[in-house]
Amino acid sequence: MTQYKYLLDEKELPTHWYNVTADMEQPPPPYRHPATLELLGPDDLAPVFPMALIEQEVSQERWIEIPDQVQDALKMWRPSPVYHAARWEEALDTPAKIYYKWEGVSPPGSHKPNTAVAQCYYAKEEGLKGFATETGAGQWGSALCFATQLFEMECKVFMVTISYQQKPYRRVAMETWGGSVVPSPSSETNAGRAILEADPETTGSLGIAISEAIEYAVTHEGFKYSLGSVVNFVLLHQTVIGLEAVKQMEMAGDYPDIVIGCAGGGSNAAGLIYPFLRAKLDGTKQDLRAIFVESTACPSMTRGIYAFDWGDTAKTGPVAKMHTVGHDFIPAPVHAGGLRYHGMAPSICALLEQEHVEARAYHQNEVLGVAESFAKAEGFIVAPETAHAVKAAYDEAMACKESGESKVILFNNSGHGHFDLGAYDAFHRKDLPDFKLDEEAIQKALAELPKVPA
Amino acid sequence: MTQYKYLLDEKELPTHWYNVTADMEQPPPPYRHPATLELLGPDDLAPVFPMALIEQEVSQERWIEIPDQVQDALKMWRPSPVYHAARWEEALDTPAKIYYKWEGVSPPGSHKPNTAVAQCYYAKEEGLKGFATETGAGQWGSALCFATQLFEMECKVFMVTISYQQKPYRRVAMETWGGSVVPSPSSETNAGRAILEADPETTGSLGIAISEAIEYAVTHEGFKYSLGSVVNFVLLHQTVIGLEAVKQMEMAGDYPDIVIGCAGGGSNAAGLIYPFLRAKLDGTKQDLRAIFVESTACPSMTRGIYAFDWGDTAKTGPVAKMHTVGHDFIPAPVHAGGLRYHGMAPSICALLEQEHVEARAYHQNEVLGVAESFAKAEGFIVAPETAHAVKAAYDEAMACKESGESKVILFNNSGHGHFDLGAYDAFHRKDLPDFKLDEEAIQKALAELPKVPA
Repeated sequence: MTQYKYLLDEKELPTHWYNVTADMEQPPPPYRHPATLELLGPDDLAPVFPMALIEQEVSQERWIEIPDQVQDALKMWRPSPVYHAARWEEALDTPAKIYYKWEGVSPPGSHKPNTAVAQCYYAKEEGLKGFATETGAGQWGSALCFATQLFEMECKVFMVTISYQQKPYRRVAMETWGGSVVPSPSSETNAGRAILEADPETTGSLGIAISEAIEYAVTHEGFKYSLGSVVNFVLLHQTVIGLEAVKQMEMAGDYPDIVIGCAGGGSNAAGLIYPFLRAKLDGTKQDLRAIFVESTACPSMTRGIYAFDWGDTAKTGPVAKMHTVGHDFIPAPVHAGGLRYHGMAPSICALLEQEHVEARAYHQNEVLGVAESFAKAEGFIVAPETAHAVKAAYDEAMACKESGESKVILFNNSGHGHFDLGAYDAFHRKDLPDFKLDEEAIQKALAELPKVPA
Repeated sequence: MTQYKYLLDEKELPTHWYNVTADMEQPPPPYRHPATLELLGPDDLAPVFPMALIEQEVSQERWIEIPDQVQDALKMWRPSPVYHAARWEEALDTPAKIYYKWEGVSPPGSHKPNTAVAQCYYAKEEGLKGFATETGAGQWGSALCFATQLFEMECKVFMVTISYQQKPYRRVAMETWGGSVVPSPSSETNAGRAILEADPETTGSLGIAISEAIEYAVTHEGFKYSLGSVVNFVLLHQTVIGLEAVKQMEMAGDYPDIVIGCAGGGSNAAGLIYPFLRAKLDGTKQDLRAIFVESTACPSMTRGIYAFDWGDTAKTGPVAKMHTVGHDFIPAPVHAGGLRYHGMAPSICALLEQEHVEARAYHQNEVLGVAESFAKAEGFIVAPETAHAVKAAYDEAMACKESGESKVILFNNSGHGHFDLGAYDAFHRKDLPDFKLDEEAIQKALAELPKVPA
């Protein structure tokens, strides 16, 4: 009989995170200060992030131990299953073997809590009282409220006003886990008040919400700021995904030829891919293909340039070398809100430049069409972001059908779409626009990059 | 370190369903014909249900084999985990040990697909083309659309108009799995047209939707009607829950003193409880307590009477002896839509009369308050129906705290509340009414019971 799931016992939860920069010949260049553009020291970041995370950000250690209390929190839903997509393979009539790691089993429904619980642990150790953060569609805010609650901390979430109004269920979930959620721009920060004064009807943006969260963190005793992607310590925390999957693929008796993840800031994709990429970087598995999939609405890797840029619109966060469409670029309002980030994790960008990994971009109609065929065969209705990874797996499986090869494909099924069914509804009603990329806007945004001294 | 989850390999999926009536000294009396009130034969049910299911309905066999193809479908998400609620125990500071079976891992998010895939298998074997059914809040409709899709069948869902309008995401999920969903009353049936003509503005009811689904099934070539609870074959299919849990409690090294489930028609509760109850019925575990939890809005077991009644408002379905508040009774619009059924599974009712099991009822505010404390500790936000089981577990755990006993409590966490966050929102806003039971309405409804000849 078919076996669908490969499960690991809690005892087999990874005890160490994997730091890919230790295996890179050329790690990404260090961050620059957002105002001076000079090299950034740990002390510059100290008012914003907990010190243990800053140390992880710059660490060159290959393996970093996962504290017992973090392991204990992760075990609430981990190890997560690897599925063999046997029914989807049959529906596609492909000789490829398709596997996926299913991160939707976490209470907030995605991979995001993998880093949220780690960040809360270190914050608590440092004696912090709470975290402030921003959220768009709400996946990250949900994960952080869930995690702060576990560590008996407070959570202040600035939720982009338009999402606050359109996705009330995400807000309710955050409140159920004890979070305090306000629409951004809010009257609780100088940044928010200034925007509201200029435009009382504004629906907000992620850039504004980040500025409010950082301001709130640095002006409230015992609070710091928490980030859900892009930076290296977040990618590090997400490697539990791939470390588990390496063992599970062994159980399945297969090794992936192709590993795939969707990428907004890049953390879920890197979390799955890096532990497999290790064998490519050391020469053991030279043929492994690693694919990061983005949205055509915000094509940092496939259309942007590799340059230093600010991590946030308000220019308050560190400046990093990355693929970017410019911190001022406003992507079209695609349903995959998590893929609307102008940059990309610096380590992924360095690996892309060094041709260790690949990137591609898709329109939202093609990804939702494939996500629907996946839901019909496998049952799971995935998030619009995740649907981009599903589409890449589909394309690779169809290429196998063409060539007759039976490659092994593994993708990260990073979360469910229970709060995103509006996207599927629009798709069914043929009411889902495929936005044409605004080339002029990108050009304009790219002209605003910082001039970083050599 | 704490162990949270007890997992079974796919190889340990139950191979047989457990039929509790084989172990009952006095099984429930046979059904009566809805029009003549005479004893009902299998042939009377044949136009409505697949024959294999009718045979299961009246079977006295203790063990009924689960066909390979059904096992194969169940393995897509089963065996489901049993969790040790260690964090909630700590939050409640109780000496009790609390475990829960987590059915939210199925793609539609509840226990409902356990029977949906079995029903589709037998329908397909019989050469049927599709199923028609009704759905209120949408859990059952979702499960059946998911299952018909797996077995390459069609699904026609009559969804109560008010839910169709208020819960569009449930409808979209059904459509994503290939179902055809219409608001009920619809213009597609005589029953629907008659109601619409009389009251074009009606928001529908479950009773009307059942009548439409049955009419659609018997008037469409290759279609039959599918039911998601109450009847014995559904409870039978749900026993995979308890059969797995028996093994998992063994792994945990504990045996429950108290098993708990929420009950609308009773299928999820019976599914967990019956395999444990077996040891009570045969005298091995005489002290086991089994608790079925209903809503005070529709208190069939705690306020109704034990009598023959029609299973549906339109009097087209079989007449069964059960605890009922009367087929005409319209319960208050509580968020736990799945608990708004006027009757209860006949086997549960017979066991209740014979004092092998207990029943209790709760108001929605008290259950959501406890469900929130559960979500804060364990992460999972449960459905409003499920919250009734959580509340009973809470009360038993607090009784242990009072008495100092460390009893083992196991409840069925039958589904997530991702589509029901409006209930939590209303609870936070203190905008959730606790309806006073309409005694007069129950008296009136109970006066309309059928007069079944002895």
